[in-house]
Amino acid sequence: MSNVPITVAHGDGIGPEIMAATLHILKEAGARLDIETIEIGEKVYLAGNPAGIAPESWASLRRTKVFLKAPITTPQGGGFSSLNVAVRKTLGLYANVRPCVSYHPFVSTKHPVMDVVIVRENEEDTYAGIEYRQTQQVEECLKLISRPGSEKIVRYAFEYARRFNRKKVTCFIKDNIMKRTDGLFHRIFDEIAPEYPEIEADHWIVDIGSAKMADTPENFDVIVMPNLYGDVLSDVAAQIAGSVGLAGSSNIGEKVAMFEAIHGSAPRRAGQNLANPSGLFLGAVLMLVHINQPDIAELAHNAWLKTLEDGVHTYDMFKEGTSKQKVGTKEFADAVVARLGQKPQTLKPVSYAANTAETDAKPIVSTPAHQTKELVGVDVFLDWWKGSFYGVADDLGTHIADLSGNNLYLQSIANRGVKVYPDGQPDTFTVDHWRFRFVAEKGEGEPVTARQILALLERFVVRGYDVIKTENLYNFDGAKGYSA
Amino acid sequence: MSNVPITVAHGDGIGPEIMAATLHILKEAGARLDIETIEIGEKVYLAGNPAGIAPESWASLRRTKVFLKAPITTPQGGGFSSLNVAVRKTLGLYANVRPCVSYHPFVSTKHPVMDVVIVRENEEDTYAGIEYRQTQQVEECLKLISRPGSEKIVRYAFEYARRFNRKKVTCFIKDNIMKRTDGLFHRIFDEIAPEYPEIEADHWIVDIGSAKMADTPENFDVIVMPNLYGDVLSDVAAQIAGSVGLAGSSNIGEKVAMFEAIHGSAPRRAGQNLANPSGLFLGAVLMLVHINQPDIAELAHNAWLKTLEDGVHTYDMFKEGTSKQKVGTKEFADAVVARLGQKPQTLKPVSYAANTAETDAKPIVSTPAHQTKELVGVDVFLDWWKGSFYGVADDLGTHIADLSGNNLYLQSIANRGVKVYPDGQPDTFTVDHWRFRFVAEKGEGEPVTARQILALLERFVVRGYDVIKTENLYNFDGAKGYSA
Repeated sequence: MSNVPITVAHGDGIGPEIMAATLHILKEAGARLDIETIEIGEKVYLAGNPAGIAPESWASLRRTKVFLKAPITTPQGGGFSSLNVAVRKTLGLYANVRPCVSYHPFVSTKHPVMDVVIVRENEEDTYAGIEYRQTQQVEECLKLISRPGSEKIVRYAFEYARRFNRKKVTCFIKDNIMKRTDGLFHRIFDEIAPEYPEIEADHWIVDIGSAKMADTPENFDVIVMPNLYGDVLSDVAAQIAGSVGLAGSSNIGEKVAMFEAIHGSAPRRAGQNLANPSGLFLGAVLMLVHINQPDIAELAHNAWLKTLEDGVHTYDMFKEGTSKQKVGTKEFADAVVARLGQKPQTLKPVSYAANTAETDAKPIVSTPAHQTKELVGVDVFLDWWKGSFYGVADDLGTHIADLSGNNLYLQSIANRGVKVYPDGQPDTFTVDHWRFRFVAEKGEGEPVTARQILALLERFVVRGYDVIKTENLYNFDGAKGYSA
Repeated sequence: MSNVPITVAHGDGIGPEIMAATLHILKEAGARLDIETIEIGEKVYLAGNPAGIAPESWASLRRTKVFLKAPITTPQGGGFSSLNVAVRKTLGLYANVRPCVSYHPFVSTKHPVMDVVIVRENEEDTYAGIEYRQTQQVEECLKLISRPGSEKIVRYAFEYARRFNRKKVTCFIKDNIMKRTDGLFHRIFDEIAPEYPEIEADHWIVDIGSAKMADTPENFDVIVMPNLYGDVLSDVAAQIAGSVGLAGSSNIGEKVAMFEAIHGSAPRRAGQNLANPSGLFLGAVLMLVHINQPDIAELAHNAWLKTLEDGVHTYDMFKEGTSKQKVGTKEFADAVVARLGQKPQTLKPVSYAANTAETDAKPIVSTPAHQTKELVGVDVFLDWWKGSFYGVADDLGTHIADLSGNNLYLQSIANRGVKVYPDGQPDTFTVDHWRFRFVAEKGEGEPVTARQILALLERFVVRGYDVIKTENLYNFDGAKGYSA
């Protein structure tokens, strides 16, 4: 078989050492790779690239489509943006996959039986970072959840489960509160799950689900989540399995995939041959499977397990009593190389069948029937402050009700999601960020037009109100597309 | 001292049994209470009250200002909304406080040394539930974080720490991503912390902070968080301490406070004298402290600790070997009553000084200097779909750039927070939800007017574009009030 081109970045801090150790094991295991090396991180930031990657490096990533990346250091001070965010956004890496496995009794953990894979949506949710300040008191962030984005990640989770013989996929959402956004994610999970009848599907509200996962992770297998929950829970899972220092992850896009350790560049440990290369190494194992070299992945991974089992440990894993030998980065890699061909005796050996490689097929995004969309009103938001946190809504309501007309009438006023007019409570605490809901004169759900909304906005502006934002209200196939 | 009026609701499922047990202990401990009883829950929902509480019950809550609430059952089927959300929103209960303590070796836990209090903001964040569907593919939820709301909760956390002799308050946020919203919460934490020099203050990014808390909770004391993180982490903390069945919580407003167990009504356990009343009982202990009866709180709480220690356990805590006697709800309460006046020997006895009661003073919200606000542009969002997830941005950009004029020019287009025009990447996956940023002709940061924005919106509407929402761009004291 011919070599597979990959792009490698050695990073900052402990990066070069753990990358050298990882590549050494891969080479000795017979990985068939053509390596293109790019520079990323501190030096590249300081050379004037705000995302820590030079423009020409994108070409290598687009050519090889496979990126093995060591941790980097983002320089102190403003103006530098996250390299990972840049790579993820630019290359559309929509899935973050993080296996969290405990290696009891060889690595300390309170959860001896743990083998959880977190599949995290990587592009949407509040993490798109779309934020606005429009009043003295309030900051806003938009949480966006899309049907295609949710379909991609949910399908990825089930495809992953099928490829790796996983038995169950669990969905974490908070759709008792976020009925529309998290509700969409949950609905898509329920739509896709039946296509995988051999895999059990269940779901938890994220609060109690997280509590169960943190307490009894042995009851979970693959867990798929929107971005924010996945960010928090993947760190929890890695930590309670043993250490964030022992986990690798993949970031999967339709064209390009990136593999890395989940820990940082630990500059204080750098250059001392101390660091544990296991996180990056396990990222590289995921890469080998991805590029269809499962035989090499299996050989290397089992040798690594045998090394842990033999008590050959770097300082971070070392524990008097369980460990046998405290070794440096290089010696650890040598120990793994020396065990190539061996399998663990106590820990479960891994086995990667030929069919575990990812296919090149694009994730399937469905094309649901177009729903009839009808404009039925508008929420107009104002910056308004009369010096009190209490009891000003009625006054405001009376004035704004005057702006009704031309088929749009004021139905209600809300503040931070609480209705305050009409029939508000005098003890509701209100801030300077107000929502005015206008619906059709004939009643809610009757059509209005974009021109009527423009005319309404003009009435606001003429009276000198500070309109800060608008949200149109739509029905889809006759059902309300907005919360109360 | 005269009796303190409180409102009590016995709830559904196991509610009446655990409330009877709790009130029995309180009475025998000498709590000075005048109890008004209201009905909430299933029957009240089915009688046609959509939030499970009758209109006249609000009067009792407003009169007594103290609510001891048993769990309820929300009937199956649509149209019923959360009672807790209704009470919280109507009465402005801004702080959710949940002590999570482990009782090793008497109750099983992997975390023998744990005594964490989660202080969760209760009104803002994505939990305001403001959601919109405006395209075929995308749902949106607004995350709102306000300065007064953040000040109230952060100050509450520090006041709590001072009252209960806590040593440290930790803040969890994700302000490396949500720089404006979570950044505001963090900034306010940093502003308020120095007013409490005797209390250590630190902060963690919520992902790794959660991982540390789930793994080594003994390193945390009081943790203050925005609503969503607090919801997830308070369940995690309660569960890993021993069980969500063993935790009580308070919901604190400026006028009214509510005390409860954090578990549900467990209808399958109802009527069998099985349920553990401890969660509700611990909620009642928080109430006694709140209404300034710390002597009674201390007496009852220590008797309860002694009961645990003596191995008198309900079925859920019972463990062969550690437990001595498996008892029912009533017998457990009797066992606590029999130990009134005793203190635990192994577990740490509690001590509530007279000064631990909450004062009636309103939480102080600062009045920061008004910042000069200047309108500098607008983000116009469109529903636009030409049948492809790729490579349509340039086409769109050319057409929309034509709408520039009258001091507003198209600066960029973004999709799910990723810039796609000008200089977009051909492989960026895009959905039908597009953002067009217009800034002043002279350059970003120069002033524009509300009338110019109206005129721009009119140009969109005339051309037949489906404008779904707008977000104005403002500078505050010359600094950008919006993300890239």
